[in-house]
Amino acid sequence: MTVTEVMSELVLQLGIIIFAVRLGGRLVKLAGIPSVLGELLAGVVIGPYALGGIVLPGFPHGFFPLGEGALAVSSELYAFATVASIILLFASGLETDLGLFLRYSVVGGVVGIGGVVFSFTLGALTGVFLLHTTFIDPRCLFLGILSTATSVGITARILSDQKRMDSPEGVTILAAAVFDDVLGIIALAIVLGIVALITSGGGSLNAANILGIAGKALGIWLGFTALGLIFSKKIAAFLKLFKHTFDFSVLALGIALALAGIFEKQGLAMIIGAYVTGLSLSKTDIAAVIQERIHGLYEFFVPIFFAVMGMMVNMREIISPKVLVFGGIYTLVALASKVVGCGGPALFLGFNLRGALRIGTGMIPRGEVALIIAGIGLASGILDTQLFGVIILMTLITTLVAPPLLNASLKIPGSGTRKPAKSDDSVVSEWEFYSDEIADLVVDNLLRDLKAEGFYVQMMNIDEGLSQARKDDISLSITEEESVVTIETSILDMPFVKTAVFEVMLRLNDTIQKLKDSSDPQAMKKELVDSGGRTSENILSLIQAECVSLRLQGNTKKEILVEMVDILADNGKLEDRSLVLEDIFQREKTMSTGMQDGIALPHAKSDGVKDICVAVGIKKSGIDFESMDGNPTRIFIMVISPKKVSGPHLQFLASVGAVLQSDEIRQKVIEADSRPQVVSLLRKGKF
Amino acid sequence: MTVTEVMSELVLQLGIIIFAVRLGGRLVKLAGIPSVLGELLAGVVIGPYALGGIVLPGFPHGFFPLGEGALAVSSELYAFATVASIILLFASGLETDLGLFLRYSVVGGVVGIGGVVFSFTLGALTGVFLLHTTFIDPRCLFLGILSTATSVGITARILSDQKRMDSPEGVTILAAAVFDDVLGIIALAIVLGIVALITSGGGSLNAANILGIAGKALGIWLGFTALGLIFSKKIAAFLKLFKHTFDFSVLALGIALALAGIFEKQGLAMIIGAYVTGLSLSKTDIAAVIQERIHGLYEFFVPIFFAVMGMMVNMREIISPKVLVFGGIYTLVALASKVVGCGGPALFLGFNLRGALRIGTGMIPRGEVALIIAGIGLASGILDTQLFGVIILMTLITTLVAPPLLNASLKIPGSGTRKPAKSDDSVVSEWEFYSDEIADLVVDNLLRDLKAEGFYVQMMNIDEGLSQARKDDISLSITEEESVVTIETSILDMPFVKTAVFEVMLRLNDTIQKLKDSSDPQAMKKELVDSGGRTSENILSLIQAECVSLRLQGNTKKEILVEMVDILADNGKLEDRSLVLEDIFQREKTMSTGMQDGIALPHAKSDGVKDICVAVGIKKSGIDFESMDGNPTRIFIMVISPKKVSGPHLQFLASVGAVLQSDEIRQKVIEADSRPQVVSLLRKGKF
Repeated sequence: MTVTEVMSELVLQLGIIIFAVRLGGRLVKLAGIPSVLGELLAGVVIGPYALGGIVLPGFPHGFFPLGEGALAVSSELYAFATVASIILLFASGLETDLGLFLRYSVVGGVVGIGGVVFSFTLGALTGVFLLHTTFIDPRCLFLGILSTATSVGITARILSDQKRMDSPEGVTILAAAVFDDVLGIIALAIVLGIVALITSGGGSLNAANILGIAGKALGIWLGFTALGLIFSKKIAAFLKLFKHTFDFSVLALGIALALAGIFEKQGLAMIIGAYVTGLSLSKTDIAAVIQERIHGLYEFFVPIFFAVMGMMVNMREIISPKVLVFGGIYTLVALASKVVGCGGPALFLGFNLRGALRIGTGMIPRGEVALIIAGIGLASGILDTQLFGVIILMTLITTLVAPPLLNASLKIPGSGTRKPAKSDDSVVSEWEFYSDEIADLVVDNLLRDLKAEGFYVQMMNIDEGLSQARKDDISLSITEEESVVTIETSILDMPFVKTAVFEVMLRLNDTIQKLKDSSDPQAMKKELVDSGGRTSENILSLIQAECVSLRLQGNTKKEILVEMVDILADNGKLEDRSLVLEDIFQREKTMSTGMQDGIALPHAKSDGVKDICVAVGIKKSGIDFESMDGNPTRIFIMVISPKKVSGPHLQFLASVGAVLQSDEIRQKVIEADSRPQVVSLLRKGKF
Repeated sequence: MTVTEVMSELVLQLGIIIFAVRLGGRLVKLAGIPSVLGELLAGVVIGPYALGGIVLPGFPHGFFPLGEGALAVSSELYAFATVASIILLFASGLETDLGLFLRYSVVGGVVGIGGVVFSFTLGALTGVFLLHTTFIDPRCLFLGILSTATSVGITARILSDQKRMDSPEGVTILAAAVFDDVLGIIALAIVLGIVALITSGGGSLNAANILGIAGKALGIWLGFTALGLIFSKKIAAFLKLFKHTFDFSVLALGIALALAGIFEKQGLAMIIGAYVTGLSLSKTDIAAVIQERIHGLYEFFVPIFFAVMGMMVNMREIISPKVLVFGGIYTLVALASKVVGCGGPALFLGFNLRGALRIGTGMIPRGEVALIIAGIGLASGILDTQLFGVIILMTLITTLVAPPLLNASLKIPGSGTRKPAKSDDSVVSEWEFYSDEIADLVVDNLLRDLKAEGFYVQMMNIDEGLSQARKDDISLSITEEESVVTIETSILDMPFVKTAVFEVMLRLNDTIQKLKDSSDPQAMKKELVDSGGRTSENILSLIQAECVSLRLQGNTKKEILVEMVDILADNGKLEDRSLVLEDIFQREKTMSTGMQDGIALPHAKSDGVKDICVAVGIKKSGIDFESMDGNPTRIFIMVISPKKVSGPHLQFLASVGAVLQSDEIRQKVIEADSRPQVVSLLRKGKF
């Protein structure tokens, strides 16, 4: 294939993947299944082993020809999946707050460690028995490490739905997940070191050797993490030299990519380098900005990763009895090892059986990290496609069964702790804002304040606007749905939450006040009529004789407005008279359209009209229209435009305002005897 | 190389590129040169022919080993550059408004067409003479097409700096550039069709044949564009089914990628498919959202494209006499062809020599599109590395010499039109807002309103916040720098501009008013003290005896606040007393901190302190502190925190508020005889 052919195949594949993952994600979400699984399955369906391999005219090997070597896809497509995995782990590192992690809940730590140790050991042992090999077979080590990484996003969603985020079980699960992440990464580093030694055949494996490798891997990890943390402020200061937030966010990702490459050279996985970079920057003040700015990259790349992993799956191999039996056993072990490994320690740490079960089931789901490691194993040739299938099965099933299991255990009535918890009474406060944007603004500000307050803030589920903030034994979950913000916390901490939200609102109000001050609508309004502008005959031709009234009847502002709307309604210009009236009154409420020299320009954009329309009214005696100079208003020109594609609404206002600057024209309009005379005066701008 | 080695090399390269392009871009910008050139040069410097080829320990072929085949870089890295070129053209298509293009200025159209025809013909003829071949040699056709595509970003910046954006010359250049874009794409389609025929050897080239190919290419382009435009609303409606803006923006990019692949299969260039997709969606209401949402992808990918193009350049070949002579002649022809091709027609359309020169020099710079086409030529083997070098030289030099030439021609005094222009008096209005975010908000809203008004709105220079809006003979340029928004337009249109800005401000004020209403600070404040909350002894230990005053002297709110700040100052708690006072008064101005039951909690975040500090004051007789219940205030507790990492500021407020809910404690505090007694009462929350 020529370069051009390779590239055109790639872009077509990327286009297809982007659609397939989003359709897949949406479909499974309707069934209440996390969208990640839909993206994975979309990859299976469109991949080279399924639809993508079908020969089509112009595509002799289908849309997704089977790749050469260890990969089922082309090297170019796999490159996008690789960068995606780096973005994923970089973002995950950014969200971890190591400082708070270190002084965090002892219970969470013990539960997390228990889960990692148990699942690693049992996962590897499954390999030992089923593959008839030894524990230090690279495949067994991979089966062990693959079983450790819990993906807590789904659990968080369920806890939030059931309003249990702040229960002792919920807090423990979320704390344990942080330990799980960090320990999983360290364990991966060690395993890769051992695997490298085994596959290179460069040394005999004994306890001292393994300890040495473990020490080296741990050393590299700790060394880089320590350096990153020590110099994090310097790095952030350097990045901030590139003023634009997009620039320094992409540069931070650049560090992650470079460090990923360097880690791989050192025999550690790329994702470890990416995670360490994120972790190092997580304590800096630009962490939140970077997270926000790379969100677009995340949305583009990460689903490609899941799809590509799905494409590696050969369904024909998976449905072989061998893979199904192996996969079934491995999955059961994976399920049991987290329930026992996490639930067991919980039993000794103040939880009863109910609580331990909830914690254990909450830690079951495996997800993205397991998939990334499986991809590494496949690409390096340690895992064959059958073992890869086993792992995909495990990931799918643990993610699928965890939600119902957790839900069931949450439904068992009663507290999960031996002693009644200090406060099981969590309460919910809800704020509804004017628009999504304002809700965004409020939540962003609130999270920033909470961080300043020493809280550990975590985005649990970026798609669904779910965040979690913890500090010591205070825990809040913040949900943003459209324009509604909901905060759940203990009844004891609700006053604190309200204080925090109150201060945010005050600050926003203040900002807005300053906006008002700096714009000064009154002064701006005055300026509008002070300067002569261009008049366009073309635009002024919107004024039509049928919509002119020489003798308005009304004596109040309200009467005049209704009367003028009725002129338009009577001439068939309006689709919905009452909607137009509402919008016109709404606009007057923000600021009167009464200008100076006896002119008013009431106007609005409204869904009650289909086309822009204009009415003109004259009231010789004048009325009080809250004009700028306080003088009575005699000439009224009303403009209504549709909200979408409104046409020359503002241009009309500016044009007619310019015409009416002339004292003589105003006088002639007021004294006009006929409607055509008024139209001619206003249209021509001359007389 | 194993897959893992390929991938780790790639991510390291991407990391290096991300840094190099930003450094390069910044360095040349200091010298006033467009950052694109810096990114290109960064690629040359770090590329395989230069630093990237240097052998290093662990890197036997350097960081950027020379690729096999036609490309100097690896196929995986080139894949990122390819996707970048698609994003670039997709974004460029999104910015074009075909509807307005079609009914746009006749002068701009003729000037644009003149430039395209002249530069194509002369560019190809240069090839004919220097390569001693015929016009229909693919290389000549490429040299022709490469010479057509003007990149108007630099020109727009200069016009804006010189306040000439709205001069007849400025408007003509910007209109001509739109024609240039569209015609360049169509010409590219035709050339590729002819080249395919030549290289396949599948047919003889005669006039009928060429017409047939031109017809087919034009047909495909027009067909897809027409279909895209006809179904654009349906496509937009479908995309909007995916509620999240990131989702549907990435999906739109997915269409661009898929269509790019399909176009390539049809013998047209990928970028044409991407451009057509952008163009089709440009008229829909989601165009602006997509542009914003893919901005992060743009910032990540596009500089990679320029760097990779730079990497293809072998400096040793470029500095050969042959390439320098060829490049010099080709560049001179490229310069002359736009000056004559665009300036010539202008002479017959009301411009004098001065004006024609300004227009001609403004159209000189070539940029991203020329580079993309050069990459296509190189990858398909039509261009060799020497010809590629010639084109890079041309791109560099035209971009470098255009700014001084245009500046010089603008400095020649006098109007550029034969008849004095209707209005040469362009005026500038400036608005300064409270923060960058608010300026963003105002500009976004203003651009949306202008679009609704039928204006053609274009982001001229995304980095520098420069936008251009045109409709018939009205033209505005809008510049956003930090929190300052500047709008330049004819003196005749300034009233219209002011009307438009005024309406935006009114609407924002209204939104804010609704925010205020929906939050109702007064009601929220009341709620704060109504509910009992948690008290933390740990946090309340911030109260220290030395900062307690049992007998405040002041009799007004202001006196009390100054007195309490002085307590903190006297105890060495403050870094900057006057700054703290200012911040405290500022906070009181937004809303009094006087609560109910005789308590006030004045507080602020201030850069005037290094650590959180608390003062307590008692005024037995009470004073008016604008409290909620109108009763006099007797107990004052002041908290000041540093702005960054403020510590438990809000938690302290909530805790102390909870303690003071008890009538008995309040009474005892007021009657206390000693400072330790007050501290003990407040700290323990019991007595």
